[in-house]
Amino acid sequence: MEISKLGETGLIKKIIKKTRLYSKDIVKGIGDDAAVIRYDKKHFLLLTTDTLVEDDHFNLSWFKPERIGIKAVESNISDMAAMGGFPKHMLVSLTVPSKINVNFFDKLFDGIHKAAKKHRISIIGGNLASGKKVSVTISMVGLVEKKNLCLRSNAKVDDLILVTGNIGNSRAGLELLRNKKKGKSIDYYLNPKSRLDLSRRLAKLGINAMEDVSDGLASEVLNICNESKKGAVICKEKIPVSKTAIKDAKRVGKDAHDYALHGGEDYELVFTISKNKLKSLKKIKSSIKFTVVGKILPKKDGIYLLDNNKKRKLKQGYEHFR
Amino acid sequence: MEISKLGETGLIKKIIKKTRLYSKDIVKGIGDDAAVIRYDKKHFLLLTTDTLVEDDHFNLSWFKPERIGIKAVESNISDMAAMGGFPKHMLVSLTVPSKINVNFFDKLFDGIHKAAKKHRISIIGGNLASGKKVSVTISMVGLVEKKNLCLRSNAKVDDLILVTGNIGNSRAGLELLRNKKKGKSIDYYLNPKSRLDLSRRLAKLGINAMEDVSDGLASEVLNICNESKKGAVICKEKIPVSKTAIKDAKRVGKDAHDYALHGGEDYELVFTISKNKLKSLKKIKSSIKFTVVGKILPKKDGIYLLDNNKKRKLKQGYEHFR
Repeated sequence: MEISKLGETGLIKKIIKKTRLYSKDIVKGIGDDAAVIRYDKKHFLLLTTDTLVEDDHFNLSWFKPERIGIKAVESNISDMAAMGGFPKHMLVSLTVPSKINVNFFDKLFDGIHKAAKKHRISIIGGNLASGKKVSVTISMVGLVEKKNLCLRSNAKVDDLILVTGNIGNSRAGLELLRNKKKGKSIDYYLNPKSRLDLSRRLAKLGINAMEDVSDGLASEVLNICNESKKGAVICKEKIPVSKTAIKDAKRVGKDAHDYALHGGEDYELVFTISKNKLKSLKKIKSSIKFTVVGKILPKKDGIYLLDNNKKRKLKQGYEHFR
Repeated sequence: MEISKLGETGLIKKIIKKTRLYSKDIVKGIGDDAAVIRYDKKHFLLLTTDTLVEDDHFNLSWFKPERIGIKAVESNISDMAAMGGFPKHMLVSLTVPSKINVNFFDKLFDGIHKAAKKHRISIIGGNLASGKKVSVTISMVGLVEKKNLCLRSNAKVDDLILVTGNIGNSRAGLELLRNKKKGKSIDYYLNPKSRLDLSRRLAKLGINAMEDVSDGLASEVLNICNESKKGAVICKEKIPVSKTAIKDAKRVGKDAHDYALHGGEDYELVFTISKNKLKSLKKIKSSIKFTVVGKILPKKDGIYLLDNNKKRKLKQGYEHFR
């Protein structure tokens, strides 16, 4: 049987099943945006890793090398943001063909250094290997104040589910490129921005569960429900989808709401919060809006999408290997 | 210009030149087997990453998937060993073609779990991506007691340079496989073993600089000299090369000493120690021998190889991209 039949989720389940934890220092292992390890009185250590592979995550004809570097860093920062924490250090593992031009190498690292400088992240090590295709794996180390830690498993029944900004733009941009069409969404796909500042303020406010929207809203809500052992309802009409995304999705004959649910790489945040904290949330001054898209339910109620008042089972979002 | 003209060392120099460290917690960044970060009163945190890429580090017709998994873990443990520390947790990033068989995936992770269990290392996270070629990047987190930390930069003038076990076997094995010949060295190449237990005892004894021999003895001695700002002499005749390696190297028309100097992936240790500690070293009961192969000199004396009483400049060992 090919692994594509199992998909990413099935494969991760296989890994978890055999994984044994040997240390009491581990607060959270596999199953969240980053691993959480005991550190000092006030902080936990956060550890995450993310890989960008040529032809899967990027295409050299669309992506300038500097953009690959920036995206590789931003996707890891997004994981730190999703935990309520902040990045400190990173290890950079780069695989490139030995015939590639030095200029490509320089530009790619320019992107990495640029994103690192912006967030004051230090490159403390890494690895260089030669291979047929370009691949960047960054492993990031961060910290989170114990009181600010946001786990996927912390959603409570009756919590509201909110999303920052708009989602679906990134996938709309990718599809435009794939179909050789033009549109503003392309920029969202090529220049994703993590929501680190905002997530820090959300964490301090005392939200419950949080996650970044890297694999589409559906996947992320399913993750939060599975880890929190809860159900949920998402209202399709309430999902924040920009006019640009709607227009660009139409250009390739698709629905932007589907990209929001099952696309990926938006790096916006989805979080849950008790109703009585909604007022304090509105006091956060930010150019980025928040939208209530649904509610956490008891587990027995299931996880579903309300589409034009019709109940539909919420299905997995973007999956690698499928 | 192609990056192969610069080689791994040239590329790393480029990265270091632009790297800025933003945190006072960093004891050692790029330039050793692992990064060293402040942790608690007694310990430093160690962080390292290593990538194995299909067709560069392994070939699927020689390597069973379980062996790839074990090797990926062992090469990272070897970095921890080289710092005098011990591994605690790891992140596993795997890239595989989506058409690969589930059995391959299972066996590869069986290898990872097996090596993890042996050293009580917990898998705390990772990443799965699809790509044309198999690639495994492991990032490992470890600890080292502050007093046991062994940096490359700590070699002193008149220190003896020692090597554990025999070296060159792994490259001899690789060359046998490449030339479709048989021999015992193949096993060294396919089943490398890190020297974690031994390195811990060496660190406690109070050696000076240490490094693993992953890129050939010449590279490692050059690294120690560069980081310590010292010179060195290595006696070619004294390099511990097994009869098996000599025999197997001859089968492909090569000299096993060259494999020891310029091969790689032996995962033995090279370390420097003051002469007066040599006696205590002999008290370490181990099935693995130690061999004095040279001496640390003042920087002005240069870094050279003594080959049949002839002085030769010590050249770089194995380099990716070349």
